[in-house]
Amino acid sequence: MNSRRDFLQKIAASALVMPLMPLAGWAARVNHYDGPVLKVAIMGLGSYGNRVAEAMKACVKAKLTGVISGTPAKIKDWQGRFGIPEKNCYNYDNFDQVKNNPDIDAVYITTPNALHHDQVIRIAAAGKQVICEKPMAVNAKEAQEMIDACKKAGVQLLVGYRMHFEPKTLEIIRMRNNGEFGKIMFFQGQCGFRIGDPTQWRLNKQLACGGAMMDIGIYAVNGARYMVGEEPVWVTAQETKTDPVKFKPGVDETIQFQLGFPGGAVASCLSTYNMNNLDRFFLNGEKGFAELWPSTGYGPIKGRTNKGELTQPHVTHQTVQMEEMAGILLEGKQPTVAVNGEEALKDLKIIDGIYQAAKTGQKVNLHL
Amino acid sequence: MNSRRDFLQKIAASALVMPLMPLAGWAARVNHYDGPVLKVAIMGLGSYGNRVAEAMKACVKAKLTGVISGTPAKIKDWQGRFGIPEKNCYNYDNFDQVKNNPDIDAVYITTPNALHHDQVIRIAAAGKQVICEKPMAVNAKEAQEMIDACKKAGVQLLVGYRMHFEPKTLEIIRMRNNGEFGKIMFFQGQCGFRIGDPTQWRLNKQLACGGAMMDIGIYAVNGARYMVGEEPVWVTAQETKTDPVKFKPGVDETIQFQLGFPGGAVASCLSTYNMNNLDRFFLNGEKGFAELWPSTGYGPIKGRTNKGELTQPHVTHQTVQMEEMAGILLEGKQPTVAVNGEEALKDLKIIDGIYQAAKTGQKVNLHL
Repeated sequence: MNSRRDFLQKIAASALVMPLMPLAGWAARVNHYDGPVLKVAIMGLGSYGNRVAEAMKACVKAKLTGVISGTPAKIKDWQGRFGIPEKNCYNYDNFDQVKNNPDIDAVYITTPNALHHDQVIRIAAAGKQVICEKPMAVNAKEAQEMIDACKKAGVQLLVGYRMHFEPKTLEIIRMRNNGEFGKIMFFQGQCGFRIGDPTQWRLNKQLACGGAMMDIGIYAVNGARYMVGEEPVWVTAQETKTDPVKFKPGVDETIQFQLGFPGGAVASCLSTYNMNNLDRFFLNGEKGFAELWPSTGYGPIKGRTNKGELTQPHVTHQTVQMEEMAGILLEGKQPTVAVNGEEALKDLKIIDGIYQAAKTGQKVNLHL
Repeated sequence: MNSRRDFLQKIAASALVMPLMPLAGWAARVNHYDGPVLKVAIMGLGSYGNRVAEAMKACVKAKLTGVISGTPAKIKDWQGRFGIPEKNCYNYDNFDQVKNNPDIDAVYITTPNALHHDQVIRIAAAGKQVICEKPMAVNAKEAQEMIDACKKAGVQLLVGYRMHFEPKTLEIIRMRNNGEFGKIMFFQGQCGFRIGDPTQWRLNKQLACGGAMMDIGIYAVNGARYMVGEEPVWVTAQETKTDPVKFKPGVDETIQFQLGFPGGAVASCLSTYNMNNLDRFFLNGEKGFAELWPSTGYGPIKGRTNKGELTQPHVTHQTVQMEEMAGILLEGKQPTVAVNGEEALKDLKIIDGIYQAAKTGQKVNLHL
């Protein structure tokens, strides 16, 4: 056994075949894993819920066991595709009954933003672990209520910060913590895309409770924090709207925002639903830099630093996220960057500040 | 003759040797040029004046013929290095006498910012063409007075916007004008470096009348205009100072600023004296993008668009600038992007707005 492991380690050390090894390692673990498995129901069977479900097929420690949806046809479809028994299917009226279902340990909520608050609180009250997609809430007040409800119910509240498990991102964080970029001075985050169908919920103020900022801008908000490695103390913001028909009042099209950090670093960020090719992070320190482009898309992420290209292999973000979240919920593992409700609360305090700064034109002090 | 030209054109069409051709072409012109030559005196024999003088050695249409300096030892040095006769040497007391010197057609002013206003007006009064380094003035009011003085004296006022002649920059402008990026939506300009010697005039409020913004930030201000191809209508700005000892009151260390354009595009810019590796432009349109990195350094400039790498050969910016300015002053040539006093006035109106916005925290409307 040991000599085979030594042999594999030697092969893995060869740069030529290294990118292939994680998959091989994965397969080996899938075949031999006999530890605890997190049984997950997905609430909200839209495109992102589907992406998570598909990604979980490759998980060892997490397994899709249930669904919650208001659309019977979708439930039928998912039952067929993922082998989900009737007793693990719920609708929005009866999902509190997951409380009595031993086949469900956790519920992953991928519904529109406005619904998260009440749904998280109901799942917590049912005694199940909660995983909620970003943005966890639509403002800091809601976020705090959700955290309190989960604490009171004795369940954990995790948030779908998939980038916190992405290998190139983690390598940059490791290098920064190791002082390899020197003192951090600047972060640039550009997050945006041109949104299509104007009838989708993401452009509906009642369901999205915002626009690009809530959907894609939050990657720049969160990214500024994990790339700089500090919590910002002020924010300024400027909103621009070129298409008031598509982007109704309360639905932001483009917002630029700036953050100031205690160590003197500043961040310059862009959130938009009306531009192409904007998925870039740039971190600048006194001794070096890091760039991710693309930085937060589903992958592959590409990156480089002043020392050269980052070569960590691509992994399906949602697979690793669910695997790691199972580790957190089942084994008490601690992620490098937090993925809990408090992490989301900080982002939402910043987003509250961004909207306030954009509206008033004033610098807003942050207390994270 | 024609068959030789055809042959050279065929060779030039081959990508392999194309980068070598401009030099060969240049040498041929140097040897055969018998047209008018612009006779230039340089005022201010510091490092940038020296750079211009060295670059002019390769010029065909422009020639260094005189110097103006307050330091006799520098004049002596330059006389030896550039073969300048005693009669073409002036100090700051007597330089109005260039009026009577037929060996000097134009004076290129490379002194500290605060001195430009009076010196430009004195050179104009002496009836010589004026070339002034950036920033032309320290605010829009001064700039307007300088423009008026040159107009009244019947001389031209040009400003050292060397990037307006840089081949990759011009290719991006050509592509944009040709619609190849579609509607322009976003510009990012990051301009900065870590400034050294704290005793230099650039960190002296009385001489620099500002800090990084006046020296390097102006590249982002000007770049936003020539890259977007519109004049901004508003500006917001945020100042950060981490080293108040090195950067005294009135000397800006780091300023982030944002611009809004009539077509809906926005710009996000950074000006700093306290960061490394910041020399990047990024332009994003509905159909494509352009990146320059480095974008405004002395070169080589590197760039790419959604269509691939830009391959225009590097040229010494100051050589081409002086050659083209001779064409403007002697032959009435028109540059692709203006390099006159009015161009500088627009930059200074924006810089006035940036300082005002940074101070008040308010959005400032621009009237360019």
